[in-house]
This record gives sequence, structure tokens and C-alpha cells, in this order.
Amino acid sequence: MWKKPTLVIDTAKVKLNIENMQSKAAASRVIFRPHFKTHQSAEVGLLFKEKGILKIAVSSVSMARFFARHGWKDITIAFPVNIAEIDEIKQLASQITLNLLVESTYSTKYVADHLASKVGIFIKIDTGYHRTGIDSANYEKIGAITSIIKSSRTLVFKGFLTHAGHTYAARSTGEIIDVFQTSMEHLNALKKTFIDDFPGIIISYGDTPSCALIEDFSGIDEVRPGNFVYFDVMQSNLGSCTTKDIAVAVACPVVATHAERNELVIYGGAVHLSKEFILDRNSDKNYGLVVEIDRNGWSDPIRGAYIKSLSQEHGIIHMPNSMFSKFHPGSTIGILPIHSCLTANLLKDNTVFL
Amino acid sequence: MWKKPTLVIDTAKVKLNIENMQSKAAASRVIFRPHFKTHQSAEVGLLFKEKGILKIAVSSVSMARFFARHGWKDITIAFPVNIAEIDEIKQLASQITLNLLVESTYSTKYVADHLASKVGIFIKIDTGYHRTGIDSANYEKIGAITSIIKSSRTLVFKGFLTHAGHTYAARSTGEIIDVFQTSMEHLNALKKTFIDDFPGIIISYGDTPSCALIEDFSGIDEVRPGNFVYFDVMQSNLGSCTTKDIAVAVACPVVATHAERNELVIYGGAVHLSKEFILDRNSDKNYGLVVEIDRNGWSDPIRGAYIKSLSQEHGIIHMPNSMFSKFHPGSTIGILPIHSCLTANLLKDNTVFL
Repeated sequence: MWKKPTLVIDTAKVKLNIENMQSKAAASRVIFRPHFKTHQSAEVGLLFKEKGILKIAVSSVSMARFFARHGWKDITIAFPVNIAEIDEIKQLASQITLNLLVESTYSTKYVADHLASKVGIFIKIDTGYHRTGIDSANYEKIGAITSIIKSSRTLVFKGFLTHAGHTYAARSTGEIIDVFQTSMEHLNALKKTFIDDFPGIIISYGDTPSCALIEDFSGIDEVRPGNFVYFDVMQSNLGSCTTKDIAVAVACPVVATHAERNELVIYGGAVHLSKEFILDRNSDKNYGLVVEIDRNGWSDPIRGAYIKSLSQEHGIIHMPNSMFSKFHPGSTIGILPIHSCLTANLLKDNTVFL
Repeated sequence: MWKKPTLVIDTAKVKLNIENMQSKAAASRVIFRPHFKTHQSAEVGLLFKEKGILKIAVSSVSMARFFARHGWKDITIAFPVNIAEIDEIKQLASQITLNLLVESTYSTKYVADHLASKVGIFIKIDTGYHRTGIDSANYEKIGAITSIIKSSRTLVFKGFLTHAGHTYAARSTGEIIDVFQTSMEHLNALKKTFIDDFPGIIISYGDTPSCALIEDFSGIDEVRPGNFVYFDVMQSNLGSCTTKDIAVAVACPVVATHAERNELVIYGGAVHLSKEFILDRNSDKNYGLVVEIDRNGWSDPIRGAYIKSLSQEHGIIHMPNSMFSKFHPGSTIGILPIHSCLTANLLKDNTVFL
């Protein structure tokens, strides 16, 4: 039905995922600034705009330029500022409301010295993920950065931002909620310390597992989840969604069948799905769940079916006996991706909307 | 120096890698049909053409169309024929010398029924990798396919083809050579059985580890290595090259430094490098080796430096103490990819040649 691996987007599910997150943010009276790195799509962006959402986050200068070209005027680049792209940042800052992230005096000074237009500055805080950001207890370093901001004519201090990515390693939804609580306490302590000097600063909080599971965002000022727009198998495994909420599937043609080992070979490999995997109960790798798919949508995951390995263009599906004979070369099969951000990035140019 | 993650291609190394493989193939008097899935680049294609190489392999109909548009006239699509793209295949078959792979009577019949122009047909044989292909001992199935070919006016039987991908799981170069020997014996037994009925059929053999390590290809008729053009860390780990032979590096800007844990954060993540990793001696994941890089080339890998984790756009480098202070935000650092095919695919639109 589809000639080659195609990202199929269930528009109704996308709209529902957006509405759910938007309502929660509204009920808690926090700013909803969705992260657009997951979809990177002008069309999906419009589904947000229709709901009146006008502030977004992205994770690169290139993405900011892309969405600025598509009419978005309030963008946070939620990534440590890449000063190698200072010319592009300068241009963006002259065109839209732009927020940058800093986490060193070095980059903060560099930005202060090179920009002509005003930009908002968030200090990136590490609340325990230890990927990047300043330790939330390091008031000395944070103070040194705020001093540079204070003496700059272009930098406007906007507050503290974190991505609590350690929720992805949580073993229970309780642990995810604990991460949220602790992060919020650290950020609020910082806000309290600096708000007299910088009235109006806010706390901005990211990550889909927290934002999907927390019902009440009170205590923070802004949420920046991204993945929730599509969700994926990793999120359903964490408990932040069910497989029914997953709004994208990759339609792949079957190219070979191996009845003797209950395996289907699909045209659909690492260059379409990415090599992200989860480990199942037996510690076997699972590169994607399997669904029946047609132009109207897709089924629940086929019980016991999964992608057991991926080459560049091939995927090998283990298919239970009972379903095996439904497929032959030329059939289409659907894959629910493990990590929709990476899959959507790979299939940017080959996407359809249901 | 480079503003964003960029695939840097060392043209001299690429030429040397091509020359080495071409000389070995010439010395053994086998057809050299390089696999272009690794680079997917019209420019790199020209480096092959300059050497008089005119036959190529690709792994999708899309890639075949791409290279046909760039003037290539003899292409094997080394992937189980995707009958969902029969219209595109039909068109290609009318324009160039095209070879397809079959491994079922179903697909063979379908192709026979739908094509108007002549195409070469290889039967895909499984010599032990168990990804796809027909077991080399299954003469019944192979005979059923050759019968369909025989009675078709468009299908021309070309011979038996294998990708001995199990060399990637070898624990020694000796094991790789064993795989080659065994595969060759199986394929030759098949050739011997069918050559009276189909004079001129050949044996086509793939995979870079074998082709890089075997000095004498006698006994096969065609080699189709792909990765050797760039090589990568996975290959140097297998012993099929040294890190000096690796012809691509990804130049990435440093965006943050964490002296307290000897970590650099780079703009360079899963969407640039892919999530392919190897496990080091302590079973830690390694997503790439680290080099110093500038417009003239790159250094040997920095001892003890590696990418310890990757997010969508971030890479986290562990850097030994002695080298740490050389880098600050805005510096460029080079990454030798774990799997250059996936990295080159991700950075197709952001490539420079040295």
C-alpha cells in the first residue's frame, strides 16, 4: 500500500495529545511551550497554532531558523548556546523573540559581546540528570553569569531552565514524580534567591515523562514537553502513555518471509527507524512494536511481534505463528517506533497524515 | 571552525581505500562492484568512476534511481526485491542494466509477470547470517525459482549472491576468514549444480570485513563491499582496518564543558551520528572515538576519549584530564563514527571534502 518506509501520522491522535497537555498546562496556569524537536514539521506546527499556542522550544539554531521561516515568533533554543553559530543567532535575534540557554561565563560573555538585539537568557540547571547544565547548588557560578547578564545591554535574564532527562531511567512512575518534585524544589530555591534582582524570572521545566504523569504543574512557570505529541514505545514502557496514544507508525513493505523461523523481512531499517531499542524481559533487544496498518489507521500492537534486529535498510520482525500467514512480499506492515523523535527525524521527507 | 555537525571526508584516504580494494579484486580477477549504500554520494561516486569502476550495488530502489540519474548504468539492487515499487523498477529496467535479488517463488513470479524489459536476477543465498535469503542447502526452493526464471522472457538468471553479515559478529580475523571459506564452498556447490542449465552464472559476495581481510578472492566471481570506502570504528575493532584508514570524521562544535567530571558537551547527537555503539572492555557503551580536527585533517584518536552518551542533538564526551583544557565552547572536535554508513546517511546534506 505504501511503496517505501513512510511515517504515518494519525492527526486525530496528535490533536488529542496536544489538547490533553494544553488543558493540563492551562489548569495549572503555566506557560505551555511545546518542544518542536520531536516533529520538526511545519504542518504539525500548524496543529499547535490552531489551538492558540504561539511559544515554542527547539533544540538547534537550524530548527529555530526553520520555524521562524514558518512564522513562529517566540522561540527558545533549549540547547546550550552554540557560539559557533553566532551570526545566525544574531540574525534570528533581530527578527523574533529569541531565548538562549547559557551555562558558562565563557559563552555568556561571548553572546553579550556579539549580539546587537535583545535576547532572553535562561540559565541551564542540572537537577540530577548530569548531561549538562550547572549544578543547582552552584550559586557562585550562577551568580557570575547573572552579573554578566546584568551588565549587558542586550541580554535579558529570563530565569532557570532544566531538562530532567533522568526520568527516562526511572523504574516506576513514582520515581518520575519524585524527580519532578526534587527538581522543582531546587529551581524554586534559585528563583527565590534571584527574583529580587531580576523581577519576572521564571522556572521552565522539560521532559515528557514528567509532564505526562504530573497532573498539577503548580510551582513551575513553564513546561516544555516535546515527545508527547507523538509518544512512542519508550514512553508507553515508562508508563507516561499507553500504546493507544502513540500517534505515529512507520508503514513498511514486507520483502521476504521465513516461515521456518517465524520471521518477516521488511524494507525498513536503521536509516528509517533509528537504532534505538528497549530490552524486553529476557534482555532481548526490541527495535519496534508491530501493528496492522492501512489508510484508515492501525491496530493495537500484535501480541508477541517485535523487530528483533535492524540493518541499514532491513528490519527483521519476529511474528507469532498465528499471524504469520497474513503477510507476504508486497504486504504493508506498521511499526510503532521506540523513539519517535529519531524516527520522525529520519523520515522527515516521507510523511503522510491520516 | 565548523558551525554545526559536518561530515568531513578525507578524499586522499577515500581514494586509497578504493585503490586498495580495486587492486585486490583485479589481482584475483573478480568483478569489483562496490556497494554505494555507505556513501550515497554522487561526488564520492565520481571517485570510483575515475578509476574505471562502472558496476555498482545499492540497497534500495530509491538509491538505484538516484545513481541512475547520476549516470550509472549497471546497478544491482542488493536487497530482496521490493515488489511494492514495481513501477519504479519497471522504469529503471527500461533505462539501465539492472539486477534484482529474489528469494521466493512469490516475488520471482510477480517480477516475471510485471516487467517488460530484461533484468538480471540473482538468487539471494543465506550462508549462515540468517538475516534473509534461502538456505544454501534448499535446492528444492532454489530449483523452483530457477524454473520460473527459465520460463520468463524478461528474467535473466545471473547467479547466486550472499551477504555474509555474520562476519560482524566474529571474535577474530580467523573467524572472518572461516566464514568466507564456508560461504564460498556453499555458493560454489550451487554454481556447479546450475551452471549447465544457466551458462555464465556467477557468485557474488559482499561484506567489508571479509573483503578487507581476504587477500585472494579466487573462487568467487564478484565482490560487493561498501563500508571500506570510509571504514569506521566498528571495522577497526573487528580488525578489518586500522583507525588511520577511517576516511570520515564528524566535526562538532563544543557547547559546554564540565571539568568536575571531565566531560565535554558537543552539538552532535543521535540525529548526526546515529545511536550505533560498541561496548568497550568494561561493557561501557562507546558511541564514537574522538580526534583533534581542522581544515587539514585529523589526529589519531585521543587515547581514553570517547562519546559516552548521545541524546537527539547532544553528545557527551569523556575526555582524559591531560587534554581537557584544550577545549572550550566554540572549539571544534572530531568524532570517528562507530558505523559510517548510518552517520553518512544522517549527514548527507552537510558534507565537506578535504
